[in-house]
Amino acid sequence: MRTSIATVSLSGSLTEKLTAAASAGFDGVEIFENDLLASPLTPEEIRARSADLGLTIDLYQPMRDIEAVPPKEFERNLRRAEHKFRLMNRLGTDTVLVCSSVSPLAVDDDALAAEHLHRLAESAQEHGVRVAYEALAWGRHVSTYDHAWRIVEAAGHPALGTCLDSFHILARGCDPKGIEAIPGEKIFFLQLADAPLMAMDVLQWSRHYRCFPGQGGLDVTGLVRHVINAGYTGPLSLEVFNDVFRQADAGPTAVDARRSLMLLQEAAGIAAPPAPVQPTGFAFAELTTPDAGAVSSLLGALGLARTARHRSKPVELWQRGDARILVTTDPVRHRDGLALAALGLESPDPVGAAARAESLLAPVLPRYRAPQDAPLDAVAAPDGVEIFFCATDRAGLPNWREDFPPLSGDGAGDRDPRGAVLRIDHLALTQPWHQFDEAALFHRTVLGLRPQESVDVADPYGLLRSRAVTNDDGTVRIALGIGPGPSDDAGRAQHIALATDDVVAAARAFQDAGGRPLPVPPNYYDDLAARFEFAPGEAETYRELGILYDRDEHGTFRHFYTETVGRVFFEVVQRDGGYRGYGAQNAPVRLAAQHALRPGRR
Amino acid sequence: MRTSIATVSLSGSLTEKLTAAASAGFDGVEIFENDLLASPLTPEEIRARSADLGLTIDLYQPMRDIEAVPPKEFERNLRRAEHKFRLMNRLGTDTVLVCSSVSPLAVDDDALAAEHLHRLAESAQEHGVRVAYEALAWGRHVSTYDHAWRIVEAAGHPALGTCLDSFHILARGCDPKGIEAIPGEKIFFLQLADAPLMAMDVLQWSRHYRCFPGQGGLDVTGLVRHVINAGYTGPLSLEVFNDVFRQADAGPTAVDARRSLMLLQEAAGIAAPPAPVQPTGFAFAELTTPDAGAVSSLLGALGLARTARHRSKPVELWQRGDARILVTTDPVRHRDGLALAALGLESPDPVGAAARAESLLAPVLPRYRAPQDAPLDAVAAPDGVEIFFCATDRAGLPNWREDFPPLSGDGAGDRDPRGAVLRIDHLALTQPWHQFDEAALFHRTVLGLRPQESVDVADPYGLLRSRAVTNDDGTVRIALGIGPGPSDDAGRAQHIALATDDVVAAARAFQDAGGRPLPVPPNYYDDLAARFEFAPGEAETYRELGILYDRDEHGTFRHFYTETVGRVFFEVVQRDGGYRGYGAQNAPVRLAAQHALRPGRR
Repeated sequence: MRTSIATVSLSGSLTEKLTAAASAGFDGVEIFENDLLASPLTPEEIRARSADLGLTIDLYQPMRDIEAVPPKEFERNLRRAEHKFRLMNRLGTDTVLVCSSVSPLAVDDDALAAEHLHRLAESAQEHGVRVAYEALAWGRHVSTYDHAWRIVEAAGHPALGTCLDSFHILARGCDPKGIEAIPGEKIFFLQLADAPLMAMDVLQWSRHYRCFPGQGGLDVTGLVRHVINAGYTGPLSLEVFNDVFRQADAGPTAVDARRSLMLLQEAAGIAAPPAPVQPTGFAFAELTTPDAGAVSSLLGALGLARTARHRSKPVELWQRGDARILVTTDPVRHRDGLALAALGLESPDPVGAAARAESLLAPVLPRYRAPQDAPLDAVAAPDGVEIFFCATDRAGLPNWREDFPPLSGDGAGDRDPRGAVLRIDHLALTQPWHQFDEAALFHRTVLGLRPQESVDVADPYGLLRSRAVTNDDGTVRIALGIGPGPSDDAGRAQHIALATDDVVAAARAFQDAGGRPLPVPPNYYDDLAARFEFAPGEAETYRELGILYDRDEHGTFRHFYTETVGRVFFEVVQRDGGYRGYGAQNAPVRLAAQHALRPGRR
Repeated sequence: MRTSIATVSLSGSLTEKLTAAASAGFDGVEIFENDLLASPLTPEEIRARSADLGLTIDLYQPMRDIEAVPPKEFERNLRRAEHKFRLMNRLGTDTVLVCSSVSPLAVDDDALAAEHLHRLAESAQEHGVRVAYEALAWGRHVSTYDHAWRIVEAAGHPALGTCLDSFHILARGCDPKGIEAIPGEKIFFLQLADAPLMAMDVLQWSRHYRCFPGQGGLDVTGLVRHVINAGYTGPLSLEVFNDVFRQADAGPTAVDARRSLMLLQEAAGIAAPPAPVQPTGFAFAELTTPDAGAVSSLLGALGLARTARHRSKPVELWQRGDARILVTTDPVRHRDGLALAALGLESPDPVGAAARAESLLAPVLPRYRAPQDAPLDAVAAPDGVEIFFCATDRAGLPNWREDFPPLSGDGAGDRDPRGAVLRIDHLALTQPWHQFDEAALFHRTVLGLRPQESVDVADPYGLLRSRAVTNDDGTVRIALGIGPGPSDDAGRAQHIALATDDVVAAARAFQDAGGRPLPVPPNYYDDLAARFEFAPGEAETYRELGILYDRDEHGTFRHFYTETVGRVFFEVVQRDGGYRGYGAQNAPVRLAAQHALRPGRR
């Protein structure tokens, strides 16, 4: 089906919005009246610009407070409408949205509303355009889609149909099944928006918190199925009022928007992009740094060994068990210090995984690879981290490790195996503040991971939010975080958590090797002793080694943190008994300690 | 009464919070447990630091999920509580807050709850401390203050009392009158918070949207009166969970907090700061600039004349009618260009107005004045703009104008009087994004102005909010605005609106004098013609001159804007028939035009 987006969903000037919509691959737009009014372009210029960009103008919107008003008022409205019909001719669009009246002048009289809409449609027809009447959830007398349809039916005019809006219908808890009773050709337009489930005034909810389908809690997919069943053949169009999207760059927002529409079509069974391929583990995490000194010391203290070097690039492989960290020395790319630049996901079908990502508009990254290098498909996540779809030492698939000839003699083979790191437990990645919901959607749909509940974490300087995405067996866990606002850097740190089955031995070995753990305040341990019953000496060990402790209904979690290098720090974790979380309870203590160490504080 | 603040209300580390509370003049603090846990200071060090700062520790909080649980659980809770009682001894605080249980293990059994609280109080007494039991609005079985009090009464222990929290009581719509039935000595503590009226989940409302008394919509004053009537003699303590305050600097937040408590005491009749003195007009607005060239041209084109110069400072007075603009050349202070740095308010009692401002913690500004200069009292508003309390040419009061000997020959006396500016109509001042509510409170209480409704304005790059404060006859109007977030600069512009009684003549004269009005897109005028019925030629005149038009139920508003110099632009407005607004309807068009002109956009 054709896809469209309302200009009000995107940030910027009208020309910026049109450009972003076209670049993201939308077929058309709805022109929001205020965007036109504020534009220096004439309607003819807007029409030409849209055509040049390959966009149709599918709707002009909105007209308000037209129907069921006193006669003098209605004549004035009709005059105003005729003005807009002429404008639509200049714009080259044939459908206008009329919202059910919220005017205090409007009366509760369906027959009068139908008569007025008939007269409006008559005038529209004379101008070669048509009217799509929509029930606002807070309309004065008409607030449900079936009521709006009854009035349209009673008006009985070929230039009059209805417009359905998923937010207005689902926010009021209406059953969308009744949509199937409306003849498809009388559904002139379909506007789609999702929203997080919130108990709040519906007008404020609508104006500020709408989001793209799949980001919220409404069953937009189910509604679309009913509309398709009714025989609707027009575009699927996004109309999203969202305070954050108003500020975010239009380009990425438009891409996120279109991806959400593609997923909606997949879910509704009307499109079939390549199937998702869930990753089965972390192949590697890649750090880039202008100077590998500090991170090499840290990795060494954590018990990883430099085991291989890329045959043609300045990339070293550090490893212990299945924990693999690539360290790329690149003075240009990360002048500010160490950063997590890429991650490799172990994939049962790397080519299929990349095909899905590409079809869902993930930017495919160019690879500068030597002829002998293994082919590696990579895309960029919303936060710019590169995601590689890999196979490690698996028969029949290109093996990225073959690009890394082993180094000899620089191992850590003589280190005590107790407390050794086994694998990457999870990665924590800070997202651009305005793309938190989109990041969760990306990881869910493009990578096939499952989002967990969002949690709020109190940083001393503002609330952070965190949401984990995982694969089914927990071998891939990524905690997506955001700070409290655009200017905040408290949450910008990234971290790599390494799993061990003996965190006490790991902490000892780390310190014996010269590693500096993040200091944990004594008050934390006093509280721990009040909250839990420990074996004799146990709490003292944690206190001595800076180990934090948490427990859920499944089991326990013990973990310690390293100092931060550049933007990155490490965590070593031991999960027992099926603990599922990430120690969020301890995050405020960790954050306060990190703030205290930061040069210059904030 | 003594004043206190919970550390959770302020941003930063525990020591930052203590310092901010002490600097703002609070007598004590509530220590929020997580702040203690995350602090590297021992309890003894926190106690000493507080004492050094002159702060008592009035409360330790919170203990949760203590009462009415199965026996084994309760024994564990008691052990945990004893741990905390010992901690309180180390901290030197004698009262702990116990919140009504939200645990799924808790049973609905008041007798058991009373028995458990009695045992808890017994243990507290042994440690020399006492327990204040509070009903959380979302408590599992106990969610109202009268229910909590019945349990406390039934428990009948001298070390057990109740804690009242204005949010928990008023958010549920409970009648606070019943508080008077509680013996004052059994009210161990009083926590105060306001909140904007919002239809949302009470837990989320409480955790994210609380604000200081007077900033929200709850009748905190009425509640305090009942608590006083009951005989309560403890501190008035603020406990405010607010996402914005968590990020804002603790120092200004603490000052805002204490001011709100002083106003609350004034409103409740338990304190009497100097009475407010409402201003009666604008004496002047002061612009500072490193180079007066551009602003001089602009003021000249607006028909103002340079009529006087300060006798000892590089300050020039531009004037027309009662519109007076001071232009201070100061290359150091505003290197970035023109900024509105100060405003003079005409006051019937300048000394009294300054005394009230000072008593309400407005920073009093030092004046570097020559011996012969008129005394002028000034304070800083939350946005840093200096506010002078002035008398202009009034008998018996020092006259600031006498510091400005007149210049000769540089008048605009030969300019056509039609369209002359008459006075300052309003000022629009951008507030720090996290102090919008506080700015409204400051202008209302310190300056005696009346806040109007907040309005949202759609900027192309994000929503702005605006709220006007005015005096009773509308001769002082200040529009306070904020942008969408901390990093946003779209809303940083300030503007001065000048009143005329012939905006068409004013616009002509401005352009004839070489002034450049802000360009208004033709689409705006097409829409205007559809919305209103104009006399023949009227709309064409507006279009030709870049005049915008609005109408409310009282009258009409016509206005045009100048280009922006530095951070400042001017508006010339004509109000007819008692129009009360500020043309908010036209603001998106104005903002889009200003963005389009900005070098480099964003």
